[in-house]
Amino acid sequence: MSSATSRVSTAPSSPDLHPVLGFSQLNMASGATTPERPSSPISFPASPLPSGKHKIAVIGSGSWGTALAKIAAENALRHPSRFHSEVRLWVRERQVNGKKLTDVINKTHMNQRYLPDVPLPENLVATPKLTDVVKDATVIIMVTPHQFLHTVISELQRVPGTITPGARCVSAIKGVEVEGTNISTFASLIEKELGTPCSALSGANIALEVAQGQFCETTIGCPSAEDAKIWHAVFDAPSFRVNTVEDVNGVSLSGALKNVVALAAGMVDGLRLGGNTKAAILRIGLQEMTNFTLEFFDGVQPGTFSNESAGIADLITTCYGGRNRKCAEEFVKSGHSFEEIERRLLNGQKLQGTATAEEVNRFLTARGCADRYPLFEKVFKISFEGLPPAELVKGL
Amino acid sequence: MSSATSRVSTAPSSPDLHPVLGFSQLNMASGATTPERPSSPISFPASPLPSGKHKIAVIGSGSWGTALAKIAAENALRHPSRFHSEVRLWVRERQVNGKKLTDVINKTHMNQRYLPDVPLPENLVATPKLTDVVKDATVIIMVTPHQFLHTVISELQRVPGTITPGARCVSAIKGVEVEGTNISTFASLIEKELGTPCSALSGANIALEVAQGQFCETTIGCPSAEDAKIWHAVFDAPSFRVNTVEDVNGVSLSGALKNVVALAAGMVDGLRLGGNTKAAILRIGLQEMTNFTLEFFDGVQPGTFSNESAGIADLITTCYGGRNRKCAEEFVKSGHSFEEIERRLLNGQKLQGTATAEEVNRFLTARGCADRYPLFEKVFKISFEGLPPAELVKGL
Repeated sequence: MSSATSRVSTAPSSPDLHPVLGFSQLNMASGATTPERPSSPISFPASPLPSGKHKIAVIGSGSWGTALAKIAAENALRHPSRFHSEVRLWVRERQVNGKKLTDVINKTHMNQRYLPDVPLPENLVATPKLTDVVKDATVIIMVTPHQFLHTVISELQRVPGTITPGARCVSAIKGVEVEGTNISTFASLIEKELGTPCSALSGANIALEVAQGQFCETTIGCPSAEDAKIWHAVFDAPSFRVNTVEDVNGVSLSGALKNVVALAAGMVDGLRLGGNTKAAILRIGLQEMTNFTLEFFDGVQPGTFSNESAGIADLITTCYGGRNRKCAEEFVKSGHSFEEIERRLLNGQKLQGTATAEEVNRFLTARGCADRYPLFEKVFKISFEGLPPAELVKGL
Repeated sequence: MSSATSRVSTAPSSPDLHPVLGFSQLNMASGATTPERPSSPISFPASPLPSGKHKIAVIGSGSWGTALAKIAAENALRHPSRFHSEVRLWVRERQVNGKKLTDVINKTHMNQRYLPDVPLPENLVATPKLTDVVKDATVIIMVTPHQFLHTVISELQRVPGTITPGARCVSAIKGVEVEGTNISTFASLIEKELGTPCSALSGANIALEVAQGQFCETTIGCPSAEDAKIWHAVFDAPSFRVNTVEDVNGVSLSGALKNVVALAAGMVDGLRLGGNTKAAILRIGLQEMTNFTLEFFDGVQPGTFSNESAGIADLITTCYGGRNRKCAEEFVKSGHSFEEIERRLLNGQKLQGTATAEEVNRFLTARGCADRYPLFEKVFKISFEGLPPAELVKGL
């Protein structure tokens, strides 16, 4: 993989991870004037999905990974004819009060660090070695922090045959990745690097609320009907309703771009404007998210944004809660820079929204079409170029 | 007009008006098994719109009527080649501290009762006599409380020739009207009774915020391109962006049905569920609003709901603010009946959401398809039949 790779992710970060990277190496002068358009569904012939019972592996044990693993493990028990009961969860080994973390999780059936006080099913087994986690697995849930994805992929690629032929992946890692002038999703990256068809899962899914069994919905974009069937069985539950769509790219991009709109929503709150203005900003933001994805990705359905949990529902949750909204409100009220607000409120971590806004703007400017995305452009200019926040809503 | 007419409206009500009526006389046994479907655009040949400058009349001077009149009067000055500068506003005469209300408004250029402290343009003239208001008017804005609409229409019908031939109307009265087994919109009622093409205006438009010039958007459903052009000129302003669509019925219905979804949103808040669940409820509610309107009305475009201010934006505003949401939260937390909550919090006025939920349910039940609208059905059963609120999100 290229070293000129950078990422913007919306996956929940934990304090000890590296700050989210921007698309800092985005190099519009690299010579590619007609960037590749990622295609959906996948462009290589996939091996057939193995028959018989499926074995589920979960790579990533942060709050979102553990919540998804909980649901998958419960469903493995619910559908014993379709799944092996044991579901393996990759946990990076470390010592906790003199004990191995995997032992603690497997004994207490809790992941106290990332999902406090939520009991996990006993058939969910924390496993320290990545190759043990994916051994014989036919359905693999990728939910690492995006910073670790390349390392994980390299590890999985090191020994040929590590991934079961015909296995399927799903990415619950939100965000997009830029290499030179190309934008691609993590689902397409996984698909390309591991040679497995990769679906994308996204929705209005705050991890703790999901783990507590509060009713919610999610969307899975799947490259084939067969993939849709398997992922529906892995995840759908009475309190976690799954809708599958064909639009893998739309599901992936909605999760990345919503954070730019959440900054705009926070600015509206900071300006003390009312509900009319905020609702207008969400509506315009959803349009720009849709249009951007349609313009730069293949196989995109506008309905993914207007009708699905990954689109409108996740946007609403993010614009009424969440730290992008909150920091943008503080940005307007305090007059401080985002850098300072990040240092003060986020312990130095970088906001996903500002990183995405910056790189989307650079990307659009290089293509000469930033003016077709006036809200994205204004959020960038207010955040980084000193445009007064009150200009946000003028001339939209 | 039939005495078996009842209404559900979402127009702002003032304390001295009658409580909002439910569809109390909805009589499914009236014999009509195949109800009329209102058509859009209009089904009669309209007289041509008069040429030359247009004269604007506004019928209704509550907060929303006054806010719209302010915008129209400002635009009349902004486009002197298209409009007569004087815009007449119908104000029911009464005495205020020994003075005529119309004199007070015309002297102070404020409507202190309904739009306190908002200066009105001097070319907006409060006029007590309805026939004087519409005399020579070619564009007529109907924004009365729905309870008075029939009286207003009768008064306008009394003397033939009161309405200028070829005049156009727009209804900013939200809600639907039921006669027997038929549902119709106020726009179609006005169109039928006055013989004028009638557009419909709706959006995320809290009146006071609009009048204060806070940025917002609105949607106008227009039966022809000519109507769209004239209404765009009457209303579009830098802080009040108008989008015109062909879907008159979708614009009308979105404003009525959103209040049922707002009850569900308030119940979620009352149950202390989080952002995931609330966003899921909004998404499902928007789907049911769209499907209901598609099923029972002609000319409906799903995009009116998913893309327009009248749809998604107004729904968001209503589900995060507004009294339907608030009273439903209180309903769940207190365990009291809506009747009691209305008495306590609304001074006896009836909520629009509960009235609409009740009648929509009766309507759907009679047609044997309530099960296709599970959210509408649950809101009704929780509100009126003792279903526990926690059942709201089960099995959706």
